[in-house]
Amino acid sequence: MRSHKILLTEQEIPEKWYNIVADMPVKPMPPLHPGTKEPIGPEALAPLFPMALIEQEVSAEKWIDIPEEVRDIYKQWRPTPLFRAHNLEKLLDTPAKIYYKYEGVSPSGSHKPNTAVPQAYYNKQEGVKRITTETGAGQWGSALSYACNLFGIDCEVYMVKISYEQKPYRKLMMNTWGAHVFPSPSDKTEAGRKILAQSPNSPGSLGIAISEAVERAAMNEDTKYSLGSVLNHVLLHQTIVGQEALLQMEKAGDLPDVVIAPFGGGSNFAGLSFPFLRLNFDEGKNIRAIASEPASCPKLTRGVFRYDFGDTVGMTPLLPMYTLGHNFVPAPIHAGGLRYHGAGVIVSQLLKDKLIEARAHNQLEAFDAGVKFARAEGIIPAPEATHAVATAIAEAEAAKEAGESRTILFNLCGHGHFDLAAYEDYFSGKLQVHELTQDEISASLAELDTPEIA
Amino acid sequence: MRSHKILLTEQEIPEKWYNIVADMPVKPMPPLHPGTKEPIGPEALAPLFPMALIEQEVSAEKWIDIPEEVRDIYKQWRPTPLFRAHNLEKLLDTPAKIYYKYEGVSPSGSHKPNTAVPQAYYNKQEGVKRITTETGAGQWGSALSYACNLFGIDCEVYMVKISYEQKPYRKLMMNTWGAHVFPSPSDKTEAGRKILAQSPNSPGSLGIAISEAVERAAMNEDTKYSLGSVLNHVLLHQTIVGQEALLQMEKAGDLPDVVIAPFGGGSNFAGLSFPFLRLNFDEGKNIRAIASEPASCPKLTRGVFRYDFGDTVGMTPLLPMYTLGHNFVPAPIHAGGLRYHGAGVIVSQLLKDKLIEARAHNQLEAFDAGVKFARAEGIIPAPEATHAVATAIAEAEAAKEAGESRTILFNLCGHGHFDLAAYEDYFSGKLQVHELTQDEISASLAELDTPEIA
Repeated sequence: MRSHKILLTEQEIPEKWYNIVADMPVKPMPPLHPGTKEPIGPEALAPLFPMALIEQEVSAEKWIDIPEEVRDIYKQWRPTPLFRAHNLEKLLDTPAKIYYKYEGVSPSGSHKPNTAVPQAYYNKQEGVKRITTETGAGQWGSALSYACNLFGIDCEVYMVKISYEQKPYRKLMMNTWGAHVFPSPSDKTEAGRKILAQSPNSPGSLGIAISEAVERAAMNEDTKYSLGSVLNHVLLHQTIVGQEALLQMEKAGDLPDVVIAPFGGGSNFAGLSFPFLRLNFDEGKNIRAIASEPASCPKLTRGVFRYDFGDTVGMTPLLPMYTLGHNFVPAPIHAGGLRYHGAGVIVSQLLKDKLIEARAHNQLEAFDAGVKFARAEGIIPAPEATHAVATAIAEAEAAKEAGESRTILFNLCGHGHFDLAAYEDYFSGKLQVHELTQDEISASLAELDTPEIA
Repeated sequence: MRSHKILLTEQEIPEKWYNIVADMPVKPMPPLHPGTKEPIGPEALAPLFPMALIEQEVSAEKWIDIPEEVRDIYKQWRPTPLFRAHNLEKLLDTPAKIYYKYEGVSPSGSHKPNTAVPQAYYNKQEGVKRITTETGAGQWGSALSYACNLFGIDCEVYMVKISYEQKPYRKLMMNTWGAHVFPSPSDKTEAGRKILAQSPNSPGSLGIAISEAVERAAMNEDTKYSLGSVLNHVLLHQTIVGQEALLQMEKAGDLPDVVIAPFGGGSNFAGLSFPFLRLNFDEGKNIRAIASEPASCPKLTRGVFRYDFGDTVGMTPLLPMYTLGHNFVPAPIHAGGLRYHGAGVIVSQLLKDKLIEARAHNQLEAFDAGVKFARAEGIIPAPEATHAVATAIAEAEAAKEAGESRTILFNLCGHGHFDLAAYEDYFSGKLQVHELTQDEISASLAELDTPEIA
């Protein structure tokens, strides 16, 4: 039997996003002002984000309507398919049933447009003329470029300089959609010029790029800033993924015992898992949710829960998060989208309360799983996605060892068309595994002078 | 109004391929033996292809069943979406309605798996252990690698050496699916060794790669050869595209006045257009079909109709085709899939009988259309596909000038994720337009000593 996809009609695209905050037994703690370290309210975010997104950021409403125009654009690639991975099951010779949701069919090739589109929409509604953002490997920057182009908003992307030089294809994708892409540090901003004065050959970092994008938005009335993960409203938008998957699992006459997704800042994981966690809250189900993170950036499995900055420079509000410290520099693994020091506030609270689990894989395990998957199922996963594949395989093997059935669902969040150089490293045996020592983590955490949480 | 997609259910995937030969008023002339120049029968193909494909190659049956197992694999990505391009229409301010069928959702990103899968299937049925093929830019090689991997058949791809070196991503995609990829000329074959002895630094050519792949198949009992276009059975398999599109247009309550597809060897064009041409034969409709070819390789618009070889070396049977001469070397445009000197037999006969049309675009026109399309519709087309976009835009503009409505459907046969360097050349103004002179064409044709057709 061949692997089968389970489709929905466009009419079945969910009409609401699910806001898990309404159901959380312990609500997230407030963000703190970076200087005063006092709790801040939504108004502090007004220079950077349109009001509609700030309202979503602090909302406690369980269901939030997806605007008709956003739903209409979603229809360009949504509903995305959900597959039963019969071939992978056969390869693993497991009694487990494995399903995956495939988000790589979007125009930019990942789940990122699910939030880029509503973010561009709400900015447009409030008359914003330009949106700035940062991007590392380029998945987020290309999704936002696509979305801004649809609404006729100018898009300015600060791309970490070393990625800008090494990964020209993602930049060209952004250009094709009309975005302006600058290697960061750039001479467009005070922050960038300062860095360039000190080190003209700086390769850049995500922290510097954030500083540049934020500065541009803060200094210009008609310009706002946009973030591709971590924040509550970003997680909210991604729940379209799990909402659809829930309907598709119902069509398959099945319900997962465990849902799995890659973990960078949290929106990928939240997108798939929160609508299933809702069944735990609402219907007393006992569905496990596992976040798959890289062993080289293990904030969930080896970090601490405390207040920390979202950026490396220390400009953003302090957020209560699992973190490795905002100065932590992860090894240069290929899964660029997972190289972030902290976890979003909601996901951190859920982990603290043991309502979700986390698992780490080194990149050799991840690519090994990715190649197995590509040969069995025919789709080449993005390096980020291979982490979820690795966890799914581990769960399927555990089911086999226990001699029990288990229904597994994971998020195949994107294709690897722009990441084949990483696969080449894998095939040629060049792939490095960096064993992160406890000393390295402790050293990064020791630098933190941010508030601890009891 | 946003661009909308028209979907089918999996149950609606057509159960038969359409064989236009049954309806052609003038049937194709027979192939000739390359040495004797006498007509040859199907048995001459037996060393290279399995019997089931040879039967399809010479079949006059109007409908040919799609095997259940092939249809089952098609379901991994089929039915593919058909879109109404509202945004492009708006951009062009045209009274025309523009639809496109999108084949880029397949695992290898183009329409090529539509034939790679049944070819691998029929080879497997007949116990074939290894399939060889050639590839230029790599679209076909990656589709066949994907299909062979599904059936556990060893896949050997001879990739033109200069592409092998310049386009590593396609090669890596093939490796990920387990194929063996050799830069051609290689030392695996007599043909390759001969070339290497003469010119050790040969960059290779599609002609040499065909010779190598054919030799490997001819010399080994358990090995067959596979071709990605030109031949009748390949065109047949691609009609799944048009069969689906016909159902989708019916769902949209519409019927195209004109259908358009890129033209390399003919299978892309045949796939979309033949099921619509059937309505002309069966129901007296008057649907126009336009083949979009590159101005630098204009066999349909500027070639001659005569017998010619399928390869450059002169090993294959002589086929009655529109050709620029088998030694014609097209300019190195980015649309590698369209750089072929001749047109398939069926399509050539249809053009001869004025049942289809052709139109040529230079690559600046093509990329200009491609970028317009990407910005309007959000999908970045493969360079091959941009040629169909250019024809569609020309038809929409003609409708506007004439002040009349017109319903246009074209095949967006693949995405451009591996071709962004070509877009970079376009953006940076580096894109070359080679004006092909009549002298160049005449010189190539003057070399031909193959039989002319009255």
